[in-house]
Amino acid sequence: MKALVTGGAGLIGSALCRRLLAQGAQVLCVDDLSLGSLRHIEDFRSSPGFEFAEWDVSRPDWHAPLRGRTFDLLAHLAANSDISLGRERPETDRSRTFDTTFEALRAARALSIPRLLFGSTSAVYGAEPVMPTPEACPAMHPVSVYGAAKLASEAFISAFVENYGLNAWVYRFGNVVGRQLTHGAIFDFVARLRRDPTELVVLGDGRQAKTYIDVEDCVSGMLHALDKSPAGRTHAQRFQVFNLSTTGTTSVREIAEETVAVMTGGKTRIRYGASAVGWVGDVARTSLDVGRMLSLGWKPRLDSTAAVKESIRTYTEWSR
Amino acid sequence: MKALVTGGAGLIGSALCRRLLAQGAQVLCVDDLSLGSLRHIEDFRSSPGFEFAEWDVSRPDWHAPLRGRTFDLLAHLAANSDISLGRERPETDRSRTFDTTFEALRAARALSIPRLLFGSTSAVYGAEPVMPTPEACPAMHPVSVYGAAKLASEAFISAFVENYGLNAWVYRFGNVVGRQLTHGAIFDFVARLRRDPTELVVLGDGRQAKTYIDVEDCVSGMLHALDKSPAGRTHAQRFQVFNLSTTGTTSVREIAEETVAVMTGGKTRIRYGASAVGWVGDVARTSLDVGRMLSLGWKPRLDSTAAVKESIRTYTEWSR
Repeated sequence: MKALVTGGAGLIGSALCRRLLAQGAQVLCVDDLSLGSLRHIEDFRSSPGFEFAEWDVSRPDWHAPLRGRTFDLLAHLAANSDISLGRERPETDRSRTFDTTFEALRAARALSIPRLLFGSTSAVYGAEPVMPTPEACPAMHPVSVYGAAKLASEAFISAFVENYGLNAWVYRFGNVVGRQLTHGAIFDFVARLRRDPTELVVLGDGRQAKTYIDVEDCVSGMLHALDKSPAGRTHAQRFQVFNLSTTGTTSVREIAEETVAVMTGGKTRIRYGASAVGWVGDVARTSLDVGRMLSLGWKPRLDSTAAVKESIRTYTEWSR
Repeated sequence: MKALVTGGAGLIGSALCRRLLAQGAQVLCVDDLSLGSLRHIEDFRSSPGFEFAEWDVSRPDWHAPLRGRTFDLLAHLAANSDISLGRERPETDRSRTFDTTFEALRAARALSIPRLLFGSTSAVYGAEPVMPTPEACPAMHPVSVYGAAKLASEAFISAFVENYGLNAWVYRFGNVVGRQLTHGAIFDFVARLRRDPTELVVLGDGRQAKTYIDVEDCVSGMLHALDKSPAGRTHAQRFQVFNLSTTGTTSVREIAEETVAVMTGGKTRIRYGASAVGWVGDVARTSLDVGRMLSLGWKPRLDSTAAVKESIRTYTEWSR
């Protein structure tokens, strides 16, 4: 099996590369290292079967050097993962999330890659979906530019599946955490506590509660669905969407308290804001209906809060 | 009232400009004339209050000359309307539909335009929605690149509404017909019959049935919803989606027979294909639930088949 992984030096991409290599696959990892890092892939960088290319997937010609090579799988994970940056500069999500998807699709078409895995997000559902939110959710109106760029990407993937013989597995992730964070609440809290261990200011009232999943469970879920839910003949069987997260949720308050417990033994004063959301475009609560994944026999190793706790412990060590 | 209309020399855009002028508005019509035509606007080109600018809205700097001017309304109708071209060259829909929307949104933000009207499409619903399809349709997976680019546009509009104080009215049109066609079944049939009046080859088995709306009803519906459903405070009240069409449907067979009756007195042999759809990415049947528009007190002047018949009659004359 030959896999091409974009964003392969990011949190999820690097875990996927590592897993594919362990299963005996050949992996070409592409990353422009804008958010990803060589440190994420250093433990397997010199493995046989692994290649790394520092390319920007938003460029129309990025896949030109691959002409004549064959791949069984394109996992497209390159994206801007910094949600609040998208509000300041919507051009960032347009370029780093939407344009990379469009150019990844063109690459899949040009190189005749039959299978595409895409890392989407619960942010496609917008502010007020039913909870827990099923994949077939009516009225998906994203409130973050991040969510908009992911939904826009899904739309083009859906059309490419119909028009050019591609098969797609689209995973709408909860908040993915692990040892190697590049963004998110844990990442922010750790950075702030390193600057000032006496006080932690939390955006929002801390009652925002979201669904978290450990990155290793995330990768096992992706490969599980690929294996257990192969492409069929109809569009719905060739463009498959999976909510991929745990069933529970974890509040920002729990994350703040646990991070403070691990880093300062609880000696930090935590100050919460008044607002129900952390910032404009933030969503106060996410909870995904993961019944479709569970029905395929997949089961996450860690629940939401256990994933958060393990991430706080391993990330503070890894980032020391 | 000062309105900025992109794609203002197209079928819907020119009808909207004409109506706004008749209501006393000042109108700046922007069109790159790639699909639109000066002939569409010739009857009001020299009206007081009307300006025309031949600009390409997909260019990031298109609105730079407007700095310092104020507009109450941006109607964004610039788009590629040739669905089958999108299959050959997905770059066309990406650039002419998605990029124009992104740059229209940046213009609305830069010029602080408070209200955006967007021309979307029933193609956002994909191949197998419930029928008649309501706006809050679960699992919207477009099968045409055209529909994908429109859904991608809607997603970014939704996020801009949340983040930058914009209010949006999104209209998912049925097949819009009228005197000045630039694409579609009637346009194609007329062109083919002019080349060869003895035989008309129809893509698909002719049983494809879609919902049609006259362009004048389309424009009255847009302005009706803008008037009767003003923006509120929540995201759902500021990003409003309306199916805009008639309640009935008209089959390709009816269109072919009527066009032949009008053009050759029925002397043409019509040859149908075997497939249920006209081309890959085509949808065999569309039927929209327009209850939301009807509940606002709007009523179309013509039903689906009457709109088709009037368009065949007026377009064959206009295009002679």
